Parts: sequence; structure tokens; C-alpha cells
Amino acid sequence: MTAIGRFISLEGGEGAGKSTQARLLADALAMRGIETLVTREPGGSEGAEAIRALLMQGEVARWSPHSEALLFAAARADHVEKTIRPALGAGRWVICDRFLDSSRAYQGVAGGIDDAAVLALHAFGSRGLLPDRTLVLELSPELGRRRAAVRDGAAADRFAARGDTFHADVAAAFRRFAKQEPERFRLVGATAGIDDVADAVFAAVADLLP
Amino acid sequence: MTAIGRFISLEGGEGAGKSTQARLLADALAMRGIETLVTREPGGSEGAEAIRALLMQGEVARWSPHSEALLFAAARADHVEKTIRPALGAGRWVICDRFLDSSRAYQGVAGGIDDAAVLALHAFGSRGLLPDRTLVLELSPELGRRRAAVRDGAAADRFAARGDTFHADVAAAFRRFAKQEPERFRLVGATAGIDDVADAVFAAVADLLP
Repeated sequence: MTAIGRFISLEGGEGAGKSTQARLLADALAMRGIETLVTREPGGSEGAEAIRALLMQGEVARWSPHSEALLFAAARADHVEKTIRPALGAGRWVICDRFLDSSRAYQGVAGGIDDAAVLALHAFGSRGLLPDRTLVLELSPELGRRRAAVRDGAAADRFAARGDTFHADVAAAFRRFAKQEPERFRLVGATAGIDDVADAVFAAVADLLP
Repeated sequence: MTAIGRFISLEGGEGAGKSTQARLLADALAMRGIETLVTREPGGSEGAEAIRALLMQGEVARWSPHSEALLFAAARADHVEKTIRPALGAGRWVICDRFLDSSRAYQGVAGGIDDAAVLALHAFGSRGLLPDRTLVLELSPELGRRRAAVRDGAAADRFAARGDTFHADVAAAFRRFAKQEPERFRLVGATAGIDDVADAVFAAVADLLP
């Protein structure tokens, strides 16, 4: 019988290094013979990538927080059904750059929607699938935004374009979630060099290894 | 003080004449000096029309019923916020070709999602806005599909492409909703000629006139 894979999500503000660390974690797991799938949200399946384009482009005020939460839930439902559950079922580890907790932080806390409502949409769309481990890459919002600005140039998306209060609310929300669910969450400092952060990321999932 | 406009939705299967009757009802109201807005779902606002393209095109199995219900709720939230509520607030009557009850019939009854869940998404996205009157244009599914096939040629969308059982379930669902909410719903036979149906449609909203 094939083992069910583990599901790891990486969370944090803009420019915290989530996509880089997702790839490095996949490399480290591959060295131990573990097959992985690296994916991201919004997106990660054909339908969800089409929804991503609607979410990331255009004016900040293009969608109300409620429409935005529904679109994220729709994209996540498609991603979970078409990409994540099949990979886990085939015994692969799934490493996801942002997942549910980004919706809880961005549309929920920073967007003014009740956490219970965000969780209800997730229960409806994705049967409430939760990661086995969620790593929050912690960086001061200022440093993160400088890094993201270097990466993206003038092409900041609808979320990077928000103000400082919004990004501070997001960072505080991730810390609060981690406190509420200490088994699932680990905070990982992301100010150090890439390799040091990668070591800390690996250490934070080591107890899940077979 | 400006009066709040009335909100009328037209429902029914494919080819029942909803868009034609929406225009004729607007004409009849205009003759009485009532300003109207004719709109449709999915769509009716810039964001909702972008979501419409995702919903109507592609394979029948492109979206799961759950993703589909979330996308409809997102489109409806945008449509209600950007188009319907502003028009009602300005005292116009809004005539909408399909609304919530299509989600209850298509994703709910025919797609296997609980009616309570569809209503919960509507409460979340659109603060539960209900039409003052919902007209169900009744036509046998066979005749409706023949009419729609003539209209659309080979370009049947993801919904028109479903099988007979699906369309029979939809028709039965509309009749059941009408029974549950007799104040809001009126069944209107749509087999007769266009002008006769238009007279019946007008009669079915006459008690709402100022």
C-alpha cells in the first residue's frame, strides 16, 4: 500500500522567499527519495490559473472582499480537486506556495471578513482540507516589500499594491493563526541568507518524515 | 425622496424566451414612465462578465459543482454590488435574465449541492438580496432545447450541453421553488406566441406597479 503524501504550505507576506524555499524544500526531500509536487495559489490547476488572472490583475478595488473570497475559494476548490488530492493520494508530498491561511489573512483579517466565513467557504469548496504543516516565513513587511519590488519591478499585483497597514495586518494575522494552532504552524525567520532559511524550513518539517 | 425600484428576475430552462421577455417587459414599463435596467446572469457587470466567460466555455466537466457554485456566487456578488443595488437605489426597476434561483436549480438540485449551501453563499456574497418577483417561464424541456438549438447553432454552452435528465431536474426545481414561495414566484406558460407571453409576464408584475 502506498503511503499518503504530506501536505506542506508556505505562508508569509510579499518577498519573504516562499517560492524559492518551496523549491529548495522539494530538492531536500528529493535527496531523501521523497517525490514532491511544488504548486502555488492562487492557481496550480488549469481552472485555478484562469481565476488567478482575474484576481491578480487590474485595480485594487476591482473586487469587493466578498467577491474576492469567493473567487479564491473557487480557485482553491479546483486546485485541491485536480492537483493536490491526486498527488497526495499517489504518495507525493505537496509543497504549496500560499494556501487557505492566505485567504484567512488577506480577505479575512485585512479585508474585514469573519474567519468563520472564510473557513466555511473552504469547508464547502475543498471539504476543509488542511496542510499537515504550515510554515510562516517571517520578514519585516518593509524588507519584504523592498525585495518584492526588486523582483517585480513596476509589475506589482493587486495585493502587493496595498498600503502598509494592510501588510502589517497580514503579518499579525499569520502570527495569531500560528498561536492558535501550534501543532500545524511553525514560524521561520526569513531575514537570514537563503541557505540558512532553507535549513530552518527543512528542520520545521523533519518530524513528518517517514 | 426617490422610490426604491423593483427587482424582477426571469427564470426557466434553455430557449424559454427569457431575454426576449425581459426586453418586452422593459418596453411595457417604459410606456408607463418607469425607468428600467435589463441585465443578465452570469454577468451584468465588468467583473461578472469576466467570470461568465470561465463558466460558459469549455467542457461540461471543466468545473466541479462546488467550484461552479462558488464562481456563480462571486459573479453574482459583483453584479449585485456594481449594477443591481445602484440601479434599485436610483429608483429604477431591474429586470434580470436569471438570478439566484438558477444557481439553486442548476448547481443545487441538478448538481447535487444542498439548497441551504447555495443560499448560504448568496447570504455571504450578496447579503441575500432576493427579487421582489420571480417569473418562471415554463416550456417543455424538449421544445426549449429545440428553440435554443436554432438560436445557438453548434455553439451550445456548458449548460445547454447537459443531458435530458439534468434539464428535467431543473424544470422540476423551479416548480418546487414556486410552490415554496408563492408570494415571490409566478409561473408563466411560455409555449404561446411572444406577444401573448409578454401580456402574461406583464400581468404577473402588475401588482407591483406604483
